Amino acid sequence: MKIFEGKSVSHVKGFKASAASAGLRYSRKDMGMVYSEVPAVAAAVFTQNIVKAAPVLVDMEHIQNETTRAMVMNSANANACTGEQGILDARETAKKAAELLSIDEREVLVYSTGVIGQLLPMEKILQGVADCANTLQSDWEDDVQKAIMTTDTTEKIRFGQIELGGKTVNLCGIAKGSGMIHPNMATMLSYVFTDANITKEMLMKMHKSCIDETFNMVTVDGDTSTNDTASIMANGCAENPLIDTENEDYQVLRAAVYEINEYLSKAIAADGEGASKLIEVDLQGASDVKSARNIAKAIVSSSLVKSAIYGADANWGRILCAMGYSGSEFDQHKVNVGFENEKGRVEVFQNGAPIEFDEALAKEILGEKEVKIMITMKDGEASAKAWGCDLTEKYVYINASYRS
Amino acid sequence: MKIFEGKSVSHVKGFKASAASAGLRYSRKDMGMVYSEVPAVAAAVFTQNIVKAAPVLVDMEHIQNETTRAMVMNSANANACTGEQGILDARETAKKAAELLSIDEREVLVYSTGVIGQLLPMEKILQGVADCANTLQSDWEDDVQKAIMTTDTTEKIRFGQIELGGKTVNLCGIAKGSGMIHPNMATMLSYVFTDANITKEMLMKMHKSCIDETFNMVTVDGDTSTNDTASIMANGCAENPLIDTENEDYQVLRAAVYEINEYLSKAIAADGEGASKLIEVDLQGASDVKSARNIAKAIVSSSLVKSAIYGADANWGRILCAMGYSGSEFDQHKVNVGFENEKGRVEVFQNGAPIEFDEALAKEILGEKEVKIMITMKDGEASAKAWGCDLTEKYVYINASYRS
Repeated sequence: MKIFEGKSVSHVKGFKASAASAGLRYSRKDMGMVYSEVPAVAAAVFTQNIVKAAPVLVDMEHIQNETTRAMVMNSANANACTGEQGILDARETAKKAAELLSIDEREVLVYSTGVIGQLLPMEKILQGVADCANTLQSDWEDDVQKAIMTTDTTEKIRFGQIELGGKTVNLCGIAKGSGMIHPNMATMLSYVFTDANITKEMLMKMHKSCIDETFNMVTVDGDTSTNDTASIMANGCAENPLIDTENEDYQVLRAAVYEINEYLSKAIAADGEGASKLIEVDLQGASDVKSARNIAKAIVSSSLVKSAIYGADANWGRILCAMGYSGSEFDQHKVNVGFENEKGRVEVFQNGAPIEFDEALAKEILGEKEVKIMITMKDGEASAKAWGCDLTEKYVYINASYRS
Repeated sequence: MKIFEGKSVSHVKGFKASAASAGLRYSRKDMGMVYSEVPAVAAAVFTQNIVKAAPVLVDMEHIQNETTRAMVMNSANANACTGEQGILDARETAKKAAELLSIDEREVLVYSTGVIGQLLPMEKILQGVADCANTLQSDWEDDVQKAIMTTDTTEKIRFGQIELGGKTVNLCGIAKGSGMIHPNMATMLSYVFTDANITKEMLMKMHKSCIDETFNMVTVDGDTSTNDTASIMANGCAENPLIDTENEDYQVLRAAVYEINEYLSKAIAADGEGASKLIEVDLQGASDVKSARNIAKAIVSSSLVKSAIYGADANWGRILCAMGYSGSEFDQHKVNVGFENEKGRVEVFQNGAPIEFDEALAKEILGEKEVKIMITMKDGEASAKAWGCDLTEKYVYINASYRS
């Protein structure tokens, strides 16, 4: 995939986008809108948390519609734990956007992130929707990726191009997320917009499988938010041959969608609250994919592993221990553990036993901003990657002192 | 139960105990032994981690024996991830104790805690076993509770007396544990010694049910160690009528065993690495016990809840969020949340919605060393308690800098 810097959502063919300052909390843009000029298809994966925010509940209905035309996002307020009124507010937001854009209410998806337990300030929200609708444009610096930020320290955006059947297909992914959940600043949200021509059924399948391998393999602190949602929308404006089976074009597009989601997942992990390092677990040779994912996630979620990486400590004991309580079976006598990045690679544990290693090299590798924990097992052919960040004093500081 | 200060394991009738300095790591006592002068029965619950330490694997065999006579403990070295040699070493330790005490090898249980991945220094260990065996005594300051400590900042011991059938029954519980797992200083270990007269079958039943409600409801950092073990041993020297059914005496003894285990569980949580506060979750009105425990544990395990309590922040949003991802179903619209301790009680969330509350009072309650999070639901009659500690910068400091 060819990557472009400086291009944003509205550079994807057939999409218009805009952002507005609704004055919800910040002195910056806090609402965004993305609109497809033609009927598009969409897919979404929602939080598994049974305490679901109002916009999630509404979107779970709206995503059932065959077509989707617009997405409306606000930061600063999550519209979560807001009861029946919260749901009415989410519906009213979608309705207002639908009226202004002359589309069906069910073609609008709404997204909120921010403080839990406060009603949306609907006057400001509706004004924000109007401001966004009035300023929608193609091919400009739309700033939607900035409007969705909360405690994020950097915007997260990736724009790529591929060829499908002789046509140029654009994809733009944006995301926000820092702590997985935050009382004031909840949630991981991600969006991919593409002009690819694909059926809703195939898009759903592709999306689900990509999210399972990317956003579902990221953890900052193990807390699954009430609002987490990963969405994708495809409007067909690239005019590539319609993808309606898992053919070669499907695989090419899937690889591109995966690549964008992996990029955004890593960006979220690296921007984890208080994080100083991105940790990637690369696990090979598990008996099955479920075990591979379980074990990789257990490692990257362990507070003790995260603290050790922060301290640049090649602490394989904590890694083995986390694998052991992952809930998946494996043969510990066939496990190898190493650490790797551009500084080199060091093996610390082989065939279930510690080995002598170069502590100085390990310290150097673990001192870098990105650290890969390489696990190889001999139980089968399955593999998985998981991403997270180190646990620092700053994480505690941020989360102990935030709300007050 | 009548509680005594200053009494230790060897004050329980028929038990002798001793501790020795084997020079494993510390300049203090690092090995302990407890011996019953008469055949006793024992029960144990072992770590669920599939990476089990050698002493755990050996004890899982030995606990099958009808009688148990001695327990041998060492700190400083966990004998975990030590392969076949580790198992041979654990067996040799048990065998040595059996020879010196003239009992069967299968009547000895062995316990190790400390660094992972290093072989036991057997010469020192065997000398320590001999020293312990040679200094066994009744009714003295045996110091076993000190010999089992690793990063613990305080010893954890509770001695109590009850009456059963006109006879005085003594119980003494000791425990160690700070982080649930530590690369150098692994593990939660607990032991209850009683002179109650009870069958092995009834003791196993009683022990399992008490541990489910106490040690299995404690978390410091969610990391389940390779060595965690909770044991109990009863030698009948109190001469109370044999408990061989779940009669009234069973219930009285169970209440005493529970009380000791709860005390030790709370002591471990309060002594969690870097902890400044003990957190208790008291959950009422769940649909079933499994859900009650799941939800209570999810709350007390959440890094965000733990950080908030550290910051004395009445952050009910994080509590609701943790309940939501616990994996158990509940009706969020029937949930109440409050905080309580000797400073008072404050309700912050009622019937699924936030309510106005006295922030100053909340701050005062949350500023104390012990904080109860009170959850009431209306889904059923089940209840659970869980214990943990706050997450502080000091936890990160300890765990980032330990091994090196």
